[in-house]
Amino acid sequence: MLLIGPFSQILPMNGLPLKGPLRDEQLPVIEKGGIIVTDGAIVTMGRFASLRVQYPQCEVHFIDRPMVLLPGFIDCHTHICFDGNRSRDYALRIAGQSYLEIARAGGGIWDTVTKTRAADDVTLAENTVARANQHLREGVTTMEVKSGYGLDMVNEMKMLQAIQSASLHTPATLVPTCLAAHMLPKDFNGTENDYLHWIIAELLPVVQAEQLARRVDIFVEATAFTPAAALRFLEKAMGMGFAATVHADQFSAGGSEVAVKAGALSADHLEASTEAQIALLAKSGTTAVVLPGASLGLGMPYAPARRLLDAGASLVIASDWNPGSAPMGDLLLQAAVMGAAEKLTMAETLAALTVRAAPALQLRNAGHLGPGHAADLQAYPCADYREILYYQGRMKPEMVWKKGVLI
Amino acid sequence: MLLIGPFSQILPMNGLPLKGPLRDEQLPVIEKGGIIVTDGAIVTMGRFASLRVQYPQCEVHFIDRPMVLLPGFIDCHTHICFDGNRSRDYALRIAGQSYLEIARAGGGIWDTVTKTRAADDVTLAENTVARANQHLREGVTTMEVKSGYGLDMVNEMKMLQAIQSASLHTPATLVPTCLAAHMLPKDFNGTENDYLHWIIAELLPVVQAEQLARRVDIFVEATAFTPAAALRFLEKAMGMGFAATVHADQFSAGGSEVAVKAGALSADHLEASTEAQIALLAKSGTTAVVLPGASLGLGMPYAPARRLLDAGASLVIASDWNPGSAPMGDLLLQAAVMGAAEKLTMAETLAALTVRAAPALQLRNAGHLGPGHAADLQAYPCADYREILYYQGRMKPEMVWKKGVLI
Ligand SMILES: [Zn+2]
Ligand SMILES: [Zn+2]
Repeated sequence: MLLIGPFSQILPMNGLPLKGPLRDEQLPVIEKGGIIVTDGAIVTMGRFASLRVQYPQCEVHFIDRPMVLLPGFIDCHTHICFDGNRSRDYALRIAGQSYLEIARAGGGIWDTVTKTRAADDVTLAENTVARANQHLREGVTTMEVKSGYGLDMVNEMKMLQAIQSASLHTPATLVPTCLAAHMLPKDFNGTENDYLHWIIAELLPVVQAEQLARRVDIFVEATAFTPAAALRFLEKAMGMGFAATVHADQFSAGGSEVAVKAGALSADHLEASTEAQIALLAKSGTTAVVLPGASLGLGMPYAPARRLLDAGASLVIASDWNPGSAPMGDLLLQAAVMGAAEKLTMAETLAALTVRAAPALQLRNAGHLGPGHAADLQAYPCADYREILYYQGRMKPEMVWKKGVLI
Repeated sequence: MLLIGPFSQILPMNGLPLKGPLRDEQLPVIEKGGIIVTDGAIVTMGRFASLRVQYPQCEVHFIDRPMVLLPGFIDCHTHICFDGNRSRDYALRIAGQSYLEIARAGGGIWDTVTKTRAADDVTLAENTVARANQHLREGVTTMEVKSGYGLDMVNEMKMLQAIQSASLHTPATLVPTCLAAHMLPKDFNGTENDYLHWIIAELLPVVQAEQLARRVDIFVEATAFTPAAALRFLEKAMGMGFAATVHADQFSAGGSEVAVKAGALSADHLEASTEAQIALLAKSGTTAVVLPGASLGLGMPYAPARRLLDAGASLVIASDWNPGSAPMGDLLLQAAVMGAAEKLTMAETLAALTVRAAPALQLRNAGHLGPGHAADLQAYPCADYREILYYQGRMKPEMVWKKGVLI
C-alpha cells in the first residue's frame, strides 16, 4: 500500500449529478488530502494527516510542493489510429474552401483512408501508441479509438487489430469502436444501404468473433449517411449486441434524433443542434458529446454546450483528435477555451472530462475517485484547482498515474 | 562562420508586401536550404549544396532530419512583468460575470496592480525572465513588455527596472513600453486628466532620463481613458520623443481613431472595430495588432482580422500575455486557431508573426532573414511549412537560435 500526498487539493469528482448545470461550490474538495493505492486501485482518500495516523505502516510518496490531484481524463471520441497528415487540406480550408468542398473534391476523410490503407498494421499501431502516450502524459488515462479509415474488410480489420495491438503497448486504456460507417467508400460498388448492409452482414460478425470492438459509430451527414439509413443500421448493430454512438448534427441537424431514437450511448458533435435537438437530448439517456477541437480546427462555432447543460443534458467534452478537422489533440486546452467561450463553470468543464464521460464509454468506477476504482490519477503544479483551466491548457499535469503506476 | 542545414525548407519571409492580403504562393521558399551565420548575424542563405561549394571552409551544423526554418517570431504586445495570477477572476468570468463587471467590483487589472506593487524588483525580474524564456523556447525571439501594474512613481519605475534587469538575464530581446496609462489608479487623488498630466510631467521625464523605455501605451476604454484625453496624452508624449501604441477598440470603438490621429505605431486589440475603424486603419501607417489570446481568455469574438487584411491594413498578431484576459501565452497556438476561424492564409498568419510585426516595434532587419540581420531563427520538425499552423500550436520549434546561439 502506498500513501500519496499531501496534495493541496484532491478533487474526487464524486457525488455530482450526471446531468444539467453545476456550480463550482458543488465540487467536493479535500484540502491537504492524501490517497492510498494498492495493486493499481484506490483504497481510500482523506486528509493526509489522518491517513498517516490510520495507516502507519503505509509507504509514503511525499508531495513536497503545491499540487492538485484529479482523476485522469476520459476522452470518449478520438480517431488517433491513422497515417499521414492533412496539412494541405488545412491550408486550402483557411484560404477559404469549406470542409465539405474539400471533401467533395477528393480531399477530406478519403485522403486519410488512402494513406491509412497504404500503411501496414505495425505503423498504424505505432502511430496510435505515440498519440495515446501523448494524451496520457497530458492526463488522459482512458480514450476511445475509432476505426473508419479502412472502409473495407481488410483495412477495417487492420485498423481494429492495430488498435488492439496498440493497447498492449501503451499504459493508457484504449476503447475501440468500429466506424466502418464513416462514409460510403468511393470504391464501394453499391448504395449506402448496400454498404451498411455489408457492414452488418459481413464485417461486424468478424469484428465480434475476434472481439475487436463492442461499439459501433456512424456519421450522419449529407456527405455520409442519411438519418433513416443510420437508424436501421444502429438497430441492427445493437441487435447484435453492439453499443452505439453517432456522429451527429455536425453541419446539419439529424443525427442526434437518430441517436436518441436508437438509444445510443452518445450523440457527438452537435455544432448544428438547435432547440429541438437540445430538448430531445436533454430528456434522453444519450450523452451529449461536444468536440471543441473540431471547432478550433475548422474555425467554426462551438456546439451549444451552455444551452445543452441548461436544458438538462449530460454534457461531455472529447477531443475528436483526427488528421482532418481536429489535428491539435490537446483535450484540456480545447475544453478550457470552449469553456471560456460558452461560459461553462469549472465544475461543468471538469465533470465533462471525467465523471460525466465515463457513461459514454460504459465505464463503471472510472472518471471519479473512490475505493476500488483504478488509480488513474493526475496532479497539477498548483495550490488551487481553478488554475488548471485558468491557464487554458498551458499548465500540464506534472504527474500522471495509470493503474497506480507513475508514468 | 557556421553553415546550418540542409533544411527541407527555409522561409525567409522577405520581399512580401507589408499591407493587405497574401496568398501562400507569394511566400518565398528555399527548398533544401542552408544558412550561414557568423558573430550572431546572418551572412547568406541559399541551396545548402551550393553553399557548401561556395564556402568550403565553413564549419557545418548538419540537420539530419526534415526541418523547416523560419525567422524567430516577434510578439509586439505583452504584459509579462507581473506577480500573482487571476484564476479567481477567471472562475467568476466563466461562471457568467463580465470582464468589466469584475473590474468594477475591484478585480481585474487593479488586483494585479496590488500584487505587483507588493512584489520586489527581483521577483518581478525573475517572473519576467521565466516567461520570456518560455516564449523564447517556443520561437518568440523578440517581445515587447509593458509596465502598467505599478501606476505610481515607485512601482512604475520598479517594473521598468525589472524589465531592464530581466533583459540582461534572458537571451530574448525585450522591448520595454511605459503603460502607466493602463487605468486611473484607485488611489490617485485627481481626475484622469490630472493623472495623465502627472505621467507626462513627472513620470516620463524620469523614464527618459534613466533610458528605461522609449515607448508609451494608453488604454482607451470606458473603464480607462477617453479618446480625447488619450489623444492629448499621446501628442505630448510623442512630443517628448516617445513612440506610441494604443490599447484600442477592445470593448468599444474609439481607440483606433486616436492611434491613427496621433500617428501611433500600432492600434492593438480591435475586437470592437467596425467598418469605419477598419477603413481608417487600412489607409493609415498604423499597424493593426490583433490579440487572439485575449479573445480565447475572455471567450469573446476575435478581432476582424480577415476584414482588416481585405481592407488593406498591415495585420499583426500578438499574444497580449497577461494574468487577466490572456493567461495562456502561447502565441503560435493563438495565431493558428484565430487563423482558422478568420480564414487567414498561412502566409498572412506567418507574416503577422514576423516581418509585419517588426515595424510595430520599429525594428529594422528583424522579422525576415537577410544578410546582416541578427540570426534569430527557429526550426520545426517537419518537411512542409504548412504543418506548423496545421497542428495549431501543438508542434513546437525543435531548435531556436538567438543571435546565432542555439538556445
Ligand atoms: Zn469524429
Ligand atoms: Zn494588452
